[in-house]
Amino acid sequence: MQKKKVAIIGATGLAGQQFLASLARHPGFEVAALAASARSAGKCYREAITHESGSLQWFCPEPLSPALADLPVQEARTFDARTVDLVFAAVESDAARELEPIYARTTPVVSTASAFRDEPDVPIFIPGVNLEHDGLIAVQKARRGWQGFITPIPNCTVTGLAITLKPLQDAFGIQSVLMTSLQACSGAGRSPGVIGLDIIDNVIPYIPKEEEKVQREAQKILGRLEGDHIVPANWAVSATCTRVPVLEGHTEAVNVSLERSASLADVKSVLAEFGRNFISRRLPSSPSRLIQVTDEPFRPQPRRDRDTEDGMVTTVGRLRVDPVLSNGIKYVLVSHNTKMGAAKGAILVAEHLVDRGLI
Amino acid sequence: MQKKKVAIIGATGLAGQQFLASLARHPGFEVAALAASARSAGKCYREAITHESGSLQWFCPEPLSPALADLPVQEARTFDARTVDLVFAAVESDAARELEPIYARTTPVVSTASAFRDEPDVPIFIPGVNLEHDGLIAVQKARRGWQGFITPIPNCTVTGLAITLKPLQDAFGIQSVLMTSLQACSGAGRSPGVIGLDIIDNVIPYIPKEEEKVQREAQKILGRLEGDHIVPANWAVSATCTRVPVLEGHTEAVNVSLERSASLADVKSVLAEFGRNFISRRLPSSPSRLIQVTDEPFRPQPRRDRDTEDGMVTTVGRLRVDPVLSNGIKYVLVSHNTKMGAAKGAILVAEHLVDRGLI
Amino acid sequence: MQKKKVAIIGATGLAGQQFLASLARHPGFEVAALAASARSAGKCYREAITHESGSLQWFCPEPLSPALADLPVQEARTFDARTVDLVFAAVESDAARELEPIYARTTPVVSTASAFRDEPDVPIFIPGVNLEHDGLIAVQKARRGWQGFITPIPNCTVTGLAITLKPLQDAFGIQSVLMTSLQACSGAGRSPGVIGLDIIDNVIPYIPKEEEKVQREAQKILGRLEGDHIVPANWAVSATCTRVPVLEGHTEAVNVSLERSASLADVKSVLAEFGRNFISRRLPSSPSRLIQVTDEPFRPQPRRDRDTEDGMVTTVGRLRVDPVLSNGIKYVLVSHNTKMGAAKGAILVAEHLVDRGLI
Amino acid sequence: MQKKKVAIIGATGLAGQQFLASLARHPGFEVAALAASARSAGKCYREAITHESGSLQWFCPEPLSPALADLPVQEARTFDARTVDLVFAAVESDAARELEPIYARTTPVVSTASAFRDEPDVPIFIPGVNLEHDGLIAVQKARRGWQGFITPIPNCTVTGLAITLKPLQDAFGIQSVLMTSLQACSGAGRSPGVIGLDIIDNVIPYIPKEEEKVQREAQKILGRLEGDHIVPANWAVSATCTRVPVLEGHTEAVNVSLERSASLADVKSVLAEFGRNFISRRLPSSPSRLIQVTDEPFRPQPRRDRDTEDGMVTTVGRLRVDPVLSNGIKYVLVSHNTKMGAAKGAILVAEHLVDRGLI
Repeated sequence: MQKKKVAIIGATGLAGQQFLASLARHPGFEVAALAASARSAGKCYREAITHESGSLQWFCPEPLSPALADLPVQEARTFDARTVDLVFAAVESDAARELEPIYARTTPVVSTASAFRDEPDVPIFIPGVNLEHDGLIAVQKARRGWQGFITPIPNCTVTGLAITLKPLQDAFGIQSVLMTSLQACSGAGRSPGVIGLDIIDNVIPYIPKEEEKVQREAQKILGRLEGDHIVPANWAVSATCTRVPVLEGHTEAVNVSLERSASLADVKSVLAEFGRNFISRRLPSSPSRLIQVTDEPFRPQPRRDRDTEDGMVTTVGRLRVDPVLSNGIKYVLVSHNTKMGAAKGAILVAEHLVDRGLI
Repeated sequence: MQKKKVAIIGATGLAGQQFLASLARHPGFEVAALAASARSAGKCYREAITHESGSLQWFCPEPLSPALADLPVQEARTFDARTVDLVFAAVESDAARELEPIYARTTPVVSTASAFRDEPDVPIFIPGVNLEHDGLIAVQKARRGWQGFITPIPNCTVTGLAITLKPLQDAFGIQSVLMTSLQACSGAGRSPGVIGLDIIDNVIPYIPKEEEKVQREAQKILGRLEGDHIVPANWAVSATCTRVPVLEGHTEAVNVSLERSASLADVKSVLAEFGRNFISRRLPSSPSRLIQVTDEPFRPQPRRDRDTEDGMVTTVGRLRVDPVLSNGIKYVLVSHNTKMGAAKGAILVAEHLVDRGLI
Repeated sequence: MQKKKVAIIGATGLAGQQFLASLARHPGFEVAALAASARSAGKCYREAITHESGSLQWFCPEPLSPALADLPVQEARTFDARTVDLVFAAVESDAARELEPIYARTTPVVSTASAFRDEPDVPIFIPGVNLEHDGLIAVQKARRGWQGFITPIPNCTVTGLAITLKPLQDAFGIQSVLMTSLQACSGAGRSPGVIGLDIIDNVIPYIPKEEEKVQREAQKILGRLEGDHIVPANWAVSATCTRVPVLEGHTEAVNVSLERSASLADVKSVLAEFGRNFISRRLPSSPSRLIQVTDEPFRPQPRRDRDTEDGMVTTVGRLRVDPVLSNGIKYVLVSHNTKMGAAKGAILVAEHLVDRGLI
Repeated sequence: MQKKKVAIIGATGLAGQQFLASLARHPGFEVAALAASARSAGKCYREAITHESGSLQWFCPEPLSPALADLPVQEARTFDARTVDLVFAAVESDAARELEPIYARTTPVVSTASAFRDEPDVPIFIPGVNLEHDGLIAVQKARRGWQGFITPIPNCTVTGLAITLKPLQDAFGIQSVLMTSLQACSGAGRSPGVIGLDIIDNVIPYIPKEEEKVQREAQKILGRLEGDHIVPANWAVSATCTRVPVLEGHTEAVNVSLERSASLADVKSVLAEFGRNFISRRLPSSPSRLIQVTDEPFRPQPRRDRDTEDGMVTTVGRLRVDPVLSNGIKYVLVSHNTKMGAAKGAILVAEHLVDRGLI
């Protein structure tokens, strides 16, 4: 099969770099174009990320692919999306709001930005969770008169939460959710991100707009596609989002009130078996399971569990009865915020869309 | 007024050292005796905490008082508690179970250990929260035939939680509480405590027995003394206790379902004004307020707020409506686990008992 | 004695805040004016450091003085230095190069910036080390036709190094110095400073321009004033400067080749007794000793030793013979980079200048 | 070729686990026996490392091989080394002193312990550096009447240092070396290792016995085999060894006085090309180069460079002229202390010995 040509917009940023790293040897996607702001345009990629001190500003653990390093960087504003089959957009929300509709006129856009997540005709995909929302793509294209479309992935804090709530909702129904997150520094990026003076020996108990995103996006993702729109889940999430001195991997303490009583054994089984159908499709970036449930009392830990299957597995542990909530259970999860929660998750979404003929 | 003579049992350990540091210049207590295990007995204190490498194993930021450094260390098992007016016990739970009753036959014991917290005739004191439980002391003395008594302080994770729940219970009633803690490493002590290989760039999502202690102790502390026993609070706490790479200061994300609806302004006012009567007694170790409520969106932070009034103030921030719980509110607190939550809190309890003529 | 009126330029930055914190209750200096960039000008100080989110961007552990919080912030470019007796400048090097000469026409300037450190008529002061270089002030005023003058303090990495080298040079002579620093994050400030993603679980082995500054400034500070210029010390420093995950306090491993052989006992004695004359002047910000020498094998440690006498003491430990260098000794020092190495050090310099009638 | 049967002694400890992880799929070695202290003996390996809380005490990032997890753990004191072709010993020094000679009577022992490093007939091997010292094995066997032998690898701090000094010595000669290390916490193991309360936001400037080991072992490793003994290198190392809040990877700032003047280009070339002959043997655990030289100004960093070629490459950066030493150069290196510096380095040594017919 011929590889799809893809562009990475915002290629010089941290999220953009993760796309480059994840696509360097991808069997189905060929990175055909890179774009960034005017400052980088006209340089080759390696040059664009080289600081005047001579330092190569490449931040992924994977080495920079020499072939990609030689690609020219185009200007995002003038990039012609018709030259590719698919655009991966990894820009800030303001830029996304401006740029993504331009690309979408002609070309599908899978985005990490929040700009369009709240639009009624835009699905927020998580692999294995709500890919059936892709029915909304036709609605979006028709309504907007686009040949392409925009599909964002969610805020990285929502990813692991929604992955674990989905099987619970399907099996037992959900009444309400409380969640306290202990989020990694990488979620804040590098410009300037979280500075060492603020986070060493410390916790920052607030991440602007994060708790609202968790609430809104979780309800939409776990909502039901009805005709031309999504009916959001009718339960609420009460979130407290904090930042801790961890590099990668969000930890979340989750309390769920189920609609129907369930034993811990049943809950465990439902979590562990979640996503069989999706997994069986063996898409290139798919892990062998969506959720790993552990009985280790001291797990999951972000440093020790985040990299399971290259960050594509959500690890759940400390499954217990919640003594306060009606039909309450509680657990702790670890989800890799810059793998399944960002570029690699977006790539897996795109693999699904290609597989379904939507790209 | 003549100073009360006090002994510190477990003087060489981390909690014991905090007693020495806090009592070095105390206006009402004179450290008259130090005791520890047989290994240290017979040495002067400085010698007892000097490692064979020549390193002085003193871990408080305050300097070691030269006068205390010269005191002889007695053996805890044979220490004669009649030589002092009061015993501060800072030993592990197993040792406390054996030693504290021996001392209590003749002498009051204020303890940081968990050994007796669950006994029905033993109050668990938090300054300003439940000191009226001291009515139980006479019951305990009578029942056990002791001239002294045992009063433990709670687990350090309970301290800040109970301090903030008490005014809410008094003003609005409580239906239920959910709490996720992000606890400091100092809570685990030094033998071996939390090792760097486990906690750097990581979260440990489990602290053995901690969640059960939070539940039991909070209910007892916020219970009502009725005659010769305490009727525990009838609401439950669902706790998830985690360890984070923070040196001192427990952070807790708390969700409370109140019995009666309350505006955030009312909740804030009730928290900020809590403890006026206790504060007005101006006991030597008392802070000028029990709770500081902050509107700063990014506070409280353990590193920046733990040392408020030398660690005796609980800081509450991020006060919000909880969208999930009935009459729900939520907030984040920071409490200094080795100041108000340990030695200095125990000393403040003892100051109360002296003031009330119970010591 | 009437207090001197002082201005703090760059008052909103991290170094500027440290001046405010250190001067809030100073017996000899009254903060009469605050200045910063145009963005802050016209606001009161509290407003100027309040982020749009409502967060007060105050980063010192000391609380912000309410009186200083109410002061208006003037624009640095148009600030009239004649309104004060002394200017403390805490701005970046480029701004310092432009602004400091304007102030110095009329008013003495004590600066933390590097802009003028290399000018031949500008002394770089460290309290107790080279204050006799103040003879250069008259030269500078005459040559430039200024009523005021500029005296910078050194790079914070030089401070502890020069304080420990000075007594060695005086007593034994120095042939050469090698130094590897393990520097705290606060040395890099907050804009953006060192980000958590770079420094957690990591070392950054390079700090731009730092090693050259160490070499040049150490030689000048330990040079000899001859007539109208300073003859730099004739020995070189080979420095390797690294950044480590420490908040405050620079640690430096120093190897010195002395001109004359010296026993470790002699070296220790010379270090411990250094600065007696300066100390005896009892200037308000002066510590009771400049150097504390410890025999504790595991000290000095930045976290445990940086705050000795509020950060004004350099702690030296691990004093050993160097087996490689001629007449070699080696030691490890800890110096508080944002106390003696920044604002408080500059204030102590100013106290000297006032005491000598130079301000 | 038939696989050699190997035993891992001290299999439950951190170093032992690294042997298990590295040998799980080794083409030339088959783990045929595991041994540990009496406490573990008689259990299967999985059981032996399972804590009473149910927690599996497995600390390598690589998963525990199920086949190895099922192996029985024998008691080290009674283990019959004749049942294997080779013993990997990963026990503490005291145990090594007792156990290794018992095994060596019949069987070769490659050890991570320091017990025998200073014996004149015992070589300390580093792959690619001094494998020609294997001539000493015959001497050792003859002198001690053993059929086997003992060959320790060096202290992990020496490994990267010696790897970089060897090509410099060969090409230019060495007069003297100064080194300051910034060592990772994993070097201290887990019992108890470095505790979080000591290392977060801190540096510990002393590691007992480490500096002496660096001096002695470096001289021996870079010494010359003459007949039946090694003539140590005649230059000294002045080391200062510190511990920093880093999980894995020792950083070392090295200053070298060469015998003959060399340009930086020559030095760089000599470092980068070091070990060609060894590399060309393509032993199973061999990296593709021993030293990687980087021009990146901010590298090497332990977190970003330690895992190069699975931790078997030493990365050198910041190569500069040393202004103080005669023919001086200086650089910073990062070496993975628990890969090339421990189990995997020992395995690579063993691969050499098998290849040479010595096992």
